[in-house]
Amino acid sequence: MDLKKIWKLVDELRGKKTGMYHKDFLLTWEKSRDELDATFLVADILRGMREANVSPKIWDSGIAVSNFRDNSTRTRFSYASACDLLGLYVQDLDEGKSQIAHGETVRETATMISFLTEAIGIRDDMYLGEGDTYQREVGKSLDEAVKAGVLSDRPTIVNLQSDIDHPTQAMADILHLAHHFGGLDKLKGKKLAMTWAYSPSYGKPLSVPQGIIGLASRFGMEISLAHPEGYDLIPDVVALSRKQAAASGGSFAHVNSMEAAFKDADIVYPKSWAPYNVMQQRVPLLHEGNTAGLKDLEKACLANNAKFTNWECDEAKMKLTKDGKALYMHCLPADITDVSCKQGEVAASVFDRYRDATYLEAGYKPYIIAAMILLGKKKDPVATLSHLIERGLVRNLD
Amino acid sequence: MDLKKIWKLVDELRGKKTGMYHKDFLLTWEKSRDELDATFLVADILRGMREANVSPKIWDSGIAVSNFRDNSTRTRFSYASACDLLGLYVQDLDEGKSQIAHGETVRETATMISFLTEAIGIRDDMYLGEGDTYQREVGKSLDEAVKAGVLSDRPTIVNLQSDIDHPTQAMADILHLAHHFGGLDKLKGKKLAMTWAYSPSYGKPLSVPQGIIGLASRFGMEISLAHPEGYDLIPDVVALSRKQAAASGGSFAHVNSMEAAFKDADIVYPKSWAPYNVMQQRVPLLHEGNTAGLKDLEKACLANNAKFTNWECDEAKMKLTKDGKALYMHCLPADITDVSCKQGEVAASVFDRYRDATYLEAGYKPYIIAAMILLGKKKDPVATLSHLIERGLVRNLD
Amino acid sequence: MDLKKIWKLVDELRGKKTGMYHKDFLLTWEKSRDELDATFLVADILRGMREANVSPKIWDSGIAVSNFRDNSTRTRFSYASACDLLGLYVQDLDEGKSQIAHGETVRETATMISFLTEAIGIRDDMYLGEGDTYQREVGKSLDEAVKAGVLSDRPTIVNLQSDIDHPTQAMADILHLAHHFGGLDKLKGKKLAMTWAYSPSYGKPLSVPQGIIGLASRFGMEISLAHPEGYDLIPDVVALSRKQAAASGGSFAHVNSMEAAFKDADIVYPKSWAPYNVMQQRVPLLHEGNTAGLKDLEKACLANNAKFTNWECDEAKMKLTKDGKALYMHCLPADITDVSCKQGEVAASVFDRYRDATYLEAGYKPYIIAAMILLGKKKDPVATLSHLIERGLVRNLD
Repeated sequence: MDLKKIWKLVDELRGKKTGMYHKDFLLTWEKSRDELDATFLVADILRGMREANVSPKIWDSGIAVSNFRDNSTRTRFSYASACDLLGLYVQDLDEGKSQIAHGETVRETATMISFLTEAIGIRDDMYLGEGDTYQREVGKSLDEAVKAGVLSDRPTIVNLQSDIDHPTQAMADILHLAHHFGGLDKLKGKKLAMTWAYSPSYGKPLSVPQGIIGLASRFGMEISLAHPEGYDLIPDVVALSRKQAAASGGSFAHVNSMEAAFKDADIVYPKSWAPYNVMQQRVPLLHEGNTAGLKDLEKACLANNAKFTNWECDEAKMKLTKDGKALYMHCLPADITDVSCKQGEVAASVFDRYRDATYLEAGYKPYIIAAMILLGKKKDPVATLSHLIERGLVRNLD
Repeated sequence: MDLKKIWKLVDELRGKKTGMYHKDFLLTWEKSRDELDATFLVADILRGMREANVSPKIWDSGIAVSNFRDNSTRTRFSYASACDLLGLYVQDLDEGKSQIAHGETVRETATMISFLTEAIGIRDDMYLGEGDTYQREVGKSLDEAVKAGVLSDRPTIVNLQSDIDHPTQAMADILHLAHHFGGLDKLKGKKLAMTWAYSPSYGKPLSVPQGIIGLASRFGMEISLAHPEGYDLIPDVVALSRKQAAASGGSFAHVNSMEAAFKDADIVYPKSWAPYNVMQQRVPLLHEGNTAGLKDLEKACLANNAKFTNWECDEAKMKLTKDGKALYMHCLPADITDVSCKQGEVAASVFDRYRDATYLEAGYKPYIIAAMILLGKKKDPVATLSHLIERGLVRNLD
Repeated sequence: MDLKKIWKLVDELRGKKTGMYHKDFLLTWEKSRDELDATFLVADILRGMREANVSPKIWDSGIAVSNFRDNSTRTRFSYASACDLLGLYVQDLDEGKSQIAHGETVRETATMISFLTEAIGIRDDMYLGEGDTYQREVGKSLDEAVKAGVLSDRPTIVNLQSDIDHPTQAMADILHLAHHFGGLDKLKGKKLAMTWAYSPSYGKPLSVPQGIIGLASRFGMEISLAHPEGYDLIPDVVALSRKQAAASGGSFAHVNSMEAAFKDADIVYPKSWAPYNVMQQRVPLLHEGNTAGLKDLEKACLANNAKFTNWECDEAKMKLTKDGKALYMHCLPADITDVSCKQGEVAASVFDRYRDATYLEAGYKPYIIAAMILLGKKKDPVATLSHLIERGLVRNLD
């Protein structure tokens, strides 16, 4: 990207009304359209600067806390890359190594890790009804610590996946679509099929499908949600997505087969998740450390799952989509039939055709995270970005 | 803090006679009063620079080794923040991941991790009689490696808690007191009650109370140490504190109840620790990995502890202090009655009133650590700080 | 080192014909003599710059992935130090924390960790026949991702020890020899004894001895390889070393006693390794997680090892070397008789005499790694180094 194009994006950003300073990024539906658009613009500006070899390093020092309460490769690397790009040093809050298990309250820990901290990324997606609550508790603690004069500045929290939303994933996904179709405005009227898909594993969080319908419904898309009976998402999120879809000039259909959802779709997002009621049963078992109970639940759930092995994104179903050429999406890793498992979410031939597209999709995440941090920490993001571009520091010396 | 005030602190620093270059910071009582004062000044200067958005980054690259042989959240984050602030990259020496268990000697490891290293932070507080010894062994190994031409420069060691002292905690605590009372000179004559307190856990190191009495006794304070029979500290440290208190124009009393210690106190520091003889018995059991023996010792110790549940910092005892308003201190996390445990070191209402104060207290630690590193690595700290301030590099670009 | 001497090395580098840009550093024998020489020169230049307090920081931000599939202290620190020196932030790919075990393919993981990544260091030495293969698979995946436009730039892979070669070790060793003897050209005709030595452990990789004979044979040295019957190295590597030795004007002898190898040697490198056929048997057992099978194999192997306890580098054998003063080398940690074990690879008195020399040897590794990264990432390394030296950024502010 050349500098002229980058400046054009900065100009576009100037037109957006945002109030993200000293706010956290927890759920996309708490953000205005202008704020979402601003996040996309900043992500593209930062990506452009890196391509143009202009360093977007804002901080000369500063900590970014990384708090992963579930496994992760791609989000962990995305977060670390984003923070490093802006000049922050990532410090893991590894609850195994820390004294958190020794009775520290969230309030205290949140303060203790924040004295020289600019950003806190949290993944907490295992416990339905708790991940988002935990993130808000951390935020409230930081507010109190700032108010009490204990912290000189408020670190911004980035939700790296909660029980409700996965905004860094969903935002990267929509940015990918904007680039694929030639602009955010081109998403209007496009049909997106967010469907459950069979996987030999169980217990995958609901936050990816929830994040997708909760965000895509802001852009006038025709959303079709499909899953077998019992694999509901959080009802509130579905209701909200339906409302948002209508308000943005799109539509929201809740259908009961992958085929119905795929019909004439421009985009398909077939992805396994656990049934809502299973997730509800799972939480107390996880808290108790009830291994036997979890085993039993898994067994029952897998037996139920097995009734729906035909929920696979195969070539026949892809043929039902618009011109048989819908864009396939996935947050990765996908369960690929005969590759990563015997029977999975997607046929190998379909995945193979879209492999590079899913990688491109994933590649937006570091920039989305960096944009969220920048917008949460900078009062006048246009000014900051302008200073960075004018400074013209070389990122990679030749 | 404005630059004028920062320069004033630099001028004050100019008046201190220090010889900390290429020395380690292991025990506060090995440092002269001027050296302690210099450490406080540098900590305040670095904090001021950060507040004034002037980067105190000394190193453009360089490693800071973090060697934690016991759990930690706050000290780990403090150390990482301090090192990052100065430009150092923290690399954990995680003895699980390394080959240390495979027969490497301390001497060899110390050298192998130091080729491009500027600072080494070590926490080793579990083994009475060994933590400080280990830190000195590392220091001696580094000296030999420098002498042999194997290392081009001597990394400085910062004691992040040993069996004897916890200087980063104690120094942060005294800096907190200096700010609270309006200057180090204001500490003269203030009564500080360092007392044991009941906790449902056992085996907490002695280094915090030892660090406090070993340091507070340098500033003319009236120290009152209290603990139940059998909960002695290392006798040498108590003797040394008594001597120092007298020499600095203060006093040292060894009393046998929390009430006696709290009487008219300006500052109270109620904190659990293990009995000296239990710590002595524990070391061979830890070495043997004797889980059964440790369990038995814990059981006996907890049974003994349980006789002293009335050693709680409650409202009644707080009333005994100067105007009922002594400053409560704790290194955190505290065992709070009915919050983190059924019966603990401190009543919830007392802790709640001083919560923010304890957080402020903790907030000095990153700057104390950074000051220790700077003074251990810089021959002319006044010159280095002057160069940093004159350079005026922005830490956080707006 | 003064700048004049550094510029002289840059001039020497100008004369080398290299094609290392966008290539990986996996096996030394895939590199031309000019490329090896260039690597040594860049290592010395970077070391010189650090000594002269000129920062060789190339990147203002960027990730260096650290993927250790086996334990390591010194190589881990060397890699982190090298990356930090160049401005890269090390992010561990810890396969325990990641989802790799959940079915991700190498291809996908390689891409997912590389969006903002400049270098990938991999240690994978446990599985004979697989480590090198894995590293090439990662490289191929990166090539595909670049070709597909998924990655904007190709990260360079540094082999931090595979089943076949340990190039960062071997290159550091040869650079140490060059400095010890006064130049790479002085190695011609020097006799190097690469011999097996007894150790009470088993299963040590073959890559160190293979790396040494595979590299030392490029410099006209007289190589003598010795080991007990059954302790063969990979036959192809031995054959290749023999050929290279002849081509470079040296020689290669395969003898059957430590004494024969040590006879008139200028350099001795006594080091334990596992028998080739044991390593072959071990791979399927490791894959199966067959703990019982591994125990049995270890037992049999140790019983066989025990026949060769006389393969110790003791004073008597050292007397056989050139003037009794051969340079002793080891990749560390060594198994030292009566120090780290009852009976080991080397007598304590011998090791003690050469301890500092082995530490010096190890000290070259960070610079060798930094040189490999620089040469893999920079099209015109002479230009980049010139810019760095001319920029004259201070690394350590006084």
